[in-house]
Amino acid sequence: MTDRFHFESSIWVSEEHNRLIEVIDQRFLPFETKIFNLKTVEDAYFAIREMVVRGAPLIGVTAAFGMYLALRNYRGDHPGRCLSEAAGYLNSSRPTAVNLFFATRRLLETFDPGKPHAVNVENIYHEAVRMRQEEIDSCRQIGEHGVPLIEEIFRNNGGRPVEILTHCNAGWLACVEWGTATAPIYLAHQKGIPLHVWVDETRPRNQGARLTAFELGLKGVPHTVIPDNAGGHLMQHGRVDLVLTGSDRTTLNGDVANKIGTYLKALAAADNGIPFYAALPSSSIDWELEDGVYHIPVEERSPDEVAFIEGWYGKQITAVRLIPEKSPVANYGFDVTPARLVTGLITERGVCRAEKNSLLHLFPEKQNPL
Amino acid sequence: MTDRFHFESSIWVSEEHNRLIEVIDQRFLPFETKIFNLKTVEDAYFAIREMVVRGAPLIGVTAAFGMYLALRNYRGDHPGRCLSEAAGYLNSSRPTAVNLFFATRRLLETFDPGKPHAVNVENIYHEAVRMRQEEIDSCRQIGEHGVPLIEEIFRNNGGRPVEILTHCNAGWLACVEWGTATAPIYLAHQKGIPLHVWVDETRPRNQGARLTAFELGLKGVPHTVIPDNAGGHLMQHGRVDLVLTGSDRTTLNGDVANKIGTYLKALAAADNGIPFYAALPSSSIDWELEDGVYHIPVEERSPDEVAFIEGWYGKQITAVRLIPEKSPVANYGFDVTPARLVTGLITERGVCRAEKNSLLHLFPEKQNPL
Repeated sequence: MTDRFHFESSIWVSEEHNRLIEVIDQRFLPFETKIFNLKTVEDAYFAIREMVVRGAPLIGVTAAFGMYLALRNYRGDHPGRCLSEAAGYLNSSRPTAVNLFFATRRLLETFDPGKPHAVNVENIYHEAVRMRQEEIDSCRQIGEHGVPLIEEIFRNNGGRPVEILTHCNAGWLACVEWGTATAPIYLAHQKGIPLHVWVDETRPRNQGARLTAFELGLKGVPHTVIPDNAGGHLMQHGRVDLVLTGSDRTTLNGDVANKIGTYLKALAAADNGIPFYAALPSSSIDWELEDGVYHIPVEERSPDEVAFIEGWYGKQITAVRLIPEKSPVANYGFDVTPARLVTGLITERGVCRAEKNSLLHLFPEKQNPL
Repeated sequence: MTDRFHFESSIWVSEEHNRLIEVIDQRFLPFETKIFNLKTVEDAYFAIREMVVRGAPLIGVTAAFGMYLALRNYRGDHPGRCLSEAAGYLNSSRPTAVNLFFATRRLLETFDPGKPHAVNVENIYHEAVRMRQEEIDSCRQIGEHGVPLIEEIFRNNGGRPVEILTHCNAGWLACVEWGTATAPIYLAHQKGIPLHVWVDETRPRNQGARLTAFELGLKGVPHTVIPDNAGGHLMQHGRVDLVLTGSDRTTLNGDVANKIGTYLKALAAADNGIPFYAALPSSSIDWELEDGVYHIPVEERSPDEVAFIEGWYGKQITAVRLIPEKSPVANYGFDVTPARLVTGLITERGVCRAEKNSLLHLFPEKQNPL
């Protein structure tokens, strides 16, 4: 494991290499820090599909640059068709991530068939760069809106550090900078509010154990990694003041699709009177979907992600088999936490209740979705 | 991984070796099948502490044989004191397992200071053997009382296989034979009732992935291993008909201490109207304790059990590091599911509600606990 890790972003444009797009290869964190280059739309698809990049906002930005790469590399006579095909291709990489669909649609809308190829390439590039910057600004704003929740808990708990439980990785590695669920944590920590984060390891891919713990450690935020099974026990015993997660997709009625297991933590929070907040940029809100529990498709991923587990052994990443070869395995990527268990949503425009009217009050332009 | 595994018991007396006590060394399952010999009380302590044996009933029987070994090997003038010390020593090996305390107390009561040493050794040996047989009989009876619950679900679900979710290992590897939670499953399967078991992998020690999956596979019971995070999602989508777990310690008011994470599954079952049953021999009921959530001590185990994970790699068991070296880790062994979330308890005397009067109706001799 390296101590030298000074990246500030999870995706960036390397100017010196002719607009090469670079991402941190998150498959090797925290054990190795490698950079993965995106030169083609296929690279972007691979990066999303194989979880070189993960996290809804970062997936969206990666798809945006994937659209740019598709058009930049295209030499034929039907650039519009090329871009449509690239959108469909990228959309198929991770079916639950709504940011993906928004990103590809937005880039498609940027394309103007009446303009020369070079102009379209330039416009689409700048739109992707703009989307990246918007995600950074969004996360920072989520942080600013979330900090008062942490401050208020601190004021009311007699000087004890605020205990926050989080699931999966909704940090800057999942976004571009700051993160969603971690943005209020990083800002509160910077402001000197004492806090401690319980980090769910987040089986099967261990994004909490590998990424969130790594991120928090880098920034000096006190934290403890726990098995996903432990959160209920901690909540029963007054060891958690706030549950704060990200969201991969939030519906208009406030249902929150997030990493598998989030629903169980929301149930425990509700059972113990602990607030449960999801922090998310509005780019991950699905304004056209009301009922998330039954209508968000939940991807089933490879059983090998459960049957084998990766760790650090003899200075290299090694996958060991965990489950008898003859036993079948199922691997669901997400679950949906119904709005009734969600205390509130922290967005870049402010905090609101997990329901349609509150969301539309913050985002009045969505009153009549297109 | 071996295909040849024909043990019927998790602990037995090897007559041909002068009453040598043998157990299956569960640390290596399902990858290797090894036998661990108990020759001294220290061996028994080690076996319990290091989880060579695990599961409340098996821990109790192992402690009983540990008491026998302590006395058999004693050459001094104070056999009573030797036995008291052995009891205290064995009791300290796993603080949550109440069977341990019952087993050592029962063996202490068998000791008669007025009798010759050889007679006491013989009596204590036979008492330990009797306890082992009682656990086998108990499990078989639990199975018989539990089968009608599965049969009834099958009758009402239109011919679909009954979907049962279980957590940790409460199979014969945790007991002596049959198991507790698995006894109704094995008996129902033998009776030809179609069923399928969702096996929680049960982090951090993966007893579900390693032991329950292995056991069910041996017996040909259809099953699928899932991450602990997946159960809520499956329950939301009607994929679970019954949650059935063991219990390490059940209080008089029906609170159920079981492997960490059980409480989260009970919450999800309650939220989705799915029955949640704990199957347990009455030897694991703590008749003197009413409130389990606040009064059952929950052991904190080594952080390395979370930070490292064992699996099969290159034909040997290998532990890989999962969590960055600098991140602290917490490891709680159990949680307590409050009685209000428990539909019922399946005991060797029958099924009852998780509350004092129902329990005492089945076990009237406990009306006035000693």
